Amino acid sequence: MTSKTYGHLYLIPVPIDQNNRESVLLEKHRKIVEHLDYFIVENEKTARFYLGALNLHKPINQLHFEVLTQTTPPEDITHYLTPLLEGFDVGLLSESGCPGVADPGSKMVALAHQMDIKVIPMTGPSSIILALMASGLNGQQFKFHGYLPSEKEDRIKKIILIENESSKYHETQIFIETPYRNQHIFNDLTDKLQDKTKLCIALDMTSENELIMTKTIKDWKKEIALDLKNKPCVFLLQA
Amino acid sequence: MTSKTYGHLYLIPVPIDQNNRESVLLEKHRKIVEHLDYFIVENEKTARFYLGALNLHKPINQLHFEVLTQTTPPEDITHYLTPLLEGFDVGLLSESGCPGVADPGSKMVALAHQMDIKVIPMTGPSSIILALMASGLNGQQFKFHGYLPSEKEDRIKKIILIENESSKYHETQIFIETPYRNQHIFNDLTDKLQDKTKLCIALDMTSENELIMTKTIKDWKKEIALDLKNKPCVFLLQA
Repeated sequence: MTSKTYGHLYLIPVPIDQNNRESVLLEKHRKIVEHLDYFIVENEKTARFYLGALNLHKPINQLHFEVLTQTTPPEDITHYLTPLLEGFDVGLLSESGCPGVADPGSKMVALAHQMDIKVIPMTGPSSIILALMASGLNGQQFKFHGYLPSEKEDRIKKIILIENESSKYHETQIFIETPYRNQHIFNDLTDKLQDKTKLCIALDMTSENELIMTKTIKDWKKEIALDLKNKPCVFLLQA
Repeated sequence: MTSKTYGHLYLIPVPIDQNNRESVLLEKHRKIVEHLDYFIVENEKTARFYLGALNLHKPINQLHFEVLTQTTPPEDITHYLTPLLEGFDVGLLSESGCPGVADPGSKMVALAHQMDIKVIPMTGPSSIILALMASGLNGQQFKFHGYLPSEKEDRIKKIILIENESSKYHETQIFIETPYRNQHIFNDLTDKLQDKTKLCIALDMTSENELIMTKTIKDWKKEIALDLKNKPCVFLLQA
């Protein structure tokens, strides 16, 4: 069903840990990246830096980059299809983890499907899945909410709604927050959730400071020394 | 907060593709597996086979295995903590993909957290995340349902409920099915969903036959030749 004359769109994961740019690709996938000349990236500077660390045996300045962010106009994204339609394979990279999950890459992927271009995802780190694996919470049913509302009142409403949903459907509820707001969220969670609800906090995933802990809200209330500020964090709860 | 005298519980992904047992681990993680002597596995035979393919430089018959399935009694799982409490690191493997996601491994992880044992997840293939990346559907909010009900009537109710939820919350809805029932589900989906709803079908993920396609229900109705029977498949929809 996919035209053989078109190129393939490869989805290339990058590290989650911003302080460690070493490859997160399997060797067979690194070899595929080696033959690519066209890339669609969220940030050109960090993408060049990461590709440089892959030892691609070709000068990075010979590669072609297009930038795809939340604000890229649809007509530009359509234009990024050109090398694919001409038969060249293209790599899609986001700023952190797996492209297409919680980033603008999915717009490019959607367009590729419309044109019957083959899309090939590569294995790599997803902070959502790593946190879920390590949480010990229900991995058979779960929901990812992205970011919680930034206004305190709306956020608290959402937290209570999420707890009710988890209680009703036995789902694990997963969300993230901009790191500077983590401590506020943690305070809201320990304030508003029921004592017996389980909360997993997954901090600095994949880094040497990684810390993943699951406790009941009752037990979290005793952890007053926990410092979440400015650390990338995934929150998971199960009522 | 984690006792340094306890061992660590490592969560070790295995291949999704049942016909290809080559390593899905990053080299740094393979090296960690090399020093482990204790394993908790869903199926001892396939675990031995997979560990054999990692070139561990030690005889597989010197390793200790405990089996953890859906039917393992809680007291046995408690017993599996013994090497961890004695200071030995332990590896947890499931039958496919990432342990703790849609498998019984999460029970072991939950127990480890209760004992303040450090849990360390390794990067590996998750068919859920790979399918989501490659779907082009919303990766900012999504829900994984596990298996749909096996009774046709209940299944159709659930499919309609899922479509309504997706329409209301703009979430991607993800589910799986036992491969022999795929074709029935596909027929139910094309029968019952609205023409404009997008459906992604991700078949034989990570294998050389991998096929990932996203189309509207209207367009899927034209794909009468598609054969899903007995192929591992992830379904994703967005209304």
